[in-house]
Amino acid sequence: MTDISTLGEFGLIRHLTKDLKNTNESTLKGVGDDCAVLSYPNKKVLITSDMLMEGVHFDLVYTPLKHLGYKAAQVNFSDVYAMNGTPRQLVVNLALSRRFSIEATEDLYAGIRLACERHGVDLVGGDTCSSLTGLAISITCIGEADESDIVYRNGAQENDLICVSGNLGAAYLGLQLMEREKRVFESQQKNGAEAAQPDFAGREYLIERFLKPEARRDIPEILRKAQIHPTAMMDVSDGLSSELLHICKQSNCGCRIYEDRLPLDYQTAAAAEEFNLNVTTCALNGGEDYELLFTAPLSEYDKLKAIDDIRIIGAITKKEEGAQLVTRDGQEFPLTAQGFNAFQS
Amino acid sequence: MTDISTLGEFGLIRHLTKDLKNTNESTLKGVGDDCAVLSYPNKKVLITSDMLMEGVHFDLVYTPLKHLGYKAAQVNFSDVYAMNGTPRQLVVNLALSRRFSIEATEDLYAGIRLACERHGVDLVGGDTCSSLTGLAISITCIGEADESDIVYRNGAQENDLICVSGNLGAAYLGLQLMEREKRVFESQQKNGAEAAQPDFAGREYLIERFLKPEARRDIPEILRKAQIHPTAMMDVSDGLSSELLHICKQSNCGCRIYEDRLPLDYQTAAAAEEFNLNVTTCALNGGEDYELLFTAPLSEYDKLKAIDDIRIIGAITKKEEGAQLVTRDGQEFPLTAQGFNAFQS
Repeated sequence: MTDISTLGEFGLIRHLTKDLKNTNESTLKGVGDDCAVLSYPNKKVLITSDMLMEGVHFDLVYTPLKHLGYKAAQVNFSDVYAMNGTPRQLVVNLALSRRFSIEATEDLYAGIRLACERHGVDLVGGDTCSSLTGLAISITCIGEADESDIVYRNGAQENDLICVSGNLGAAYLGLQLMEREKRVFESQQKNGAEAAQPDFAGREYLIERFLKPEARRDIPEILRKAQIHPTAMMDVSDGLSSELLHICKQSNCGCRIYEDRLPLDYQTAAAAEEFNLNVTTCALNGGEDYELLFTAPLSEYDKLKAIDDIRIIGAITKKEEGAQLVTRDGQEFPLTAQGFNAFQS
Repeated sequence: MTDISTLGEFGLIRHLTKDLKNTNESTLKGVGDDCAVLSYPNKKVLITSDMLMEGVHFDLVYTPLKHLGYKAAQVNFSDVYAMNGTPRQLVVNLALSRRFSIEATEDLYAGIRLACERHGVDLVGGDTCSSLTGLAISITCIGEADESDIVYRNGAQENDLICVSGNLGAAYLGLQLMEREKRVFESQQKNGAEAAQPDFAGREYLIERFLKPEARRDIPEILRKAQIHPTAMMDVSDGLSSELLHICKQSNCGCRIYEDRLPLDYQTAAAAEEFNLNVTTCALNGGEDYELLFTAPLSEYDKLKAIDDIRIIGAITKKEEGAQLVTRDGQEFPLTAQGFNAFQS
């Protein structure tokens, strides 16, 4: 393993970015100057940025660096898709402590670059520096959209349908599995036992949803083809409840969703039972699903029903009715934002 | 002091951004959705990003949080001015450990917002999360420029004049002063003595250059008015030597600068003597000056000479001649990049 100081800051950046190719017309100048230079004469520019801190957002005990890089990029793409836009450029800031070698940094970058390739995004800049403690990753993504296509959080109207793509809660149960394996591993180490390989057979989907999420590039395309224009949209990063409350607050409305309509994968339900967790709570508050949550006019019901990977889970109501979950037995409970609070975890 | 967890992540962001006003035409939507939305139909878009880590880039023992926020924003503006552009939007990611209160975060934001106001920049988004240890700040700045105005690092031509704004080395000596006072303070604490207030009389300029740098918005304007178009430009963040070597490498040329032409403030020279440091080394390798270094055609000599705050320090040469410093006694020494190496400090 090679110490980063043998290359220095500029050497490391050159090494990591040396064979980058820009593929988007909007990228005039990528890595290598004080700024990247972009061109957006006919589109609006979307900007999103996220920060991931070791020990808070990820645990390197069970997160391979390549997966981490991949996920860090996908999380940003997801925010651009949530505006009904297309991601085009990525800027990556890394702070690395001494325990990271050049090879480790290459792994992290390999994941970022793979995600970029898959989503047609150019890596155009960033900063690489040292950290006294853990790894910190800050990523900014630049995207584009026609002004008339952009979907904000504030456009939901009474009687709109509430829809979500894919399924919910799987990433959260993936995290529970990883945390359990970590505890087993640590107790084996403490007892001097040889560490057994974790057995995730039948749970692969949950692990993948947690470690290697895919931003839903396909959903805005499917909606466009079906000529459905969402009235409000956001991605599910903190948990469905938390996101729905954002849409209600910004659209000045209420909502009613139905427990029996929440999309769940079989593995999610099975793992929730194994962990003695309420699967509905996992789906509502688990977070990190990176699915798209959106609202659309009631008139689009038939078209939405016909789309395989989209589920109608409820409807927008008057503000006075609040945000409600209707349980399987017909009771109503107010939705609460138990989503990820970065300052309590 | 109020614990951040009383507000939570979204509450803190709302609190810090609640009365933000966007002033730029290019800002269509700021804080509050998955992405900010910008409009640049007639200009090219400039993107720069920087990461500052506690203990590596700043020491909170002697850096007030408001100054830190101010500096973190200015450092990014400086990169946009170095492209001959105008900064327009800022995205701020913060990772805060538990020891930071809401009030501390307000101070940091107050500095960022003051810098934004002074430079006409809108704060349009960002992420706030927790950190297990220190403070991490990652800032992305979006700027604009006409394509024909943009100045890259790669346009320097043989015989071009090498120019620098303001003066060099002051921030580095400001840092030395702060580090010395920190050692004094710590030894007083160890000995149980009452801590004396540090006396920076006659050194205020150095402290200010280090703690509260101002990005040189005025220089591109002055050059534009004088109808001088730089052939290459960058800002002096890592040190003059390091930056000059970047320009030489990217422009495929050499350079010759003259020791007796390096602009120095009187306080810089006096403090260098006091610290027994070679003032030329401080000017060449000190870093954090945030002045603009640029090259311009020899034909602009008279116009450049007439500008008060710009100094011609040398000329671009053939690549084969290398990058050379001519000392006061006429000897030549190759310039070396002893600038800030984030992985050795």
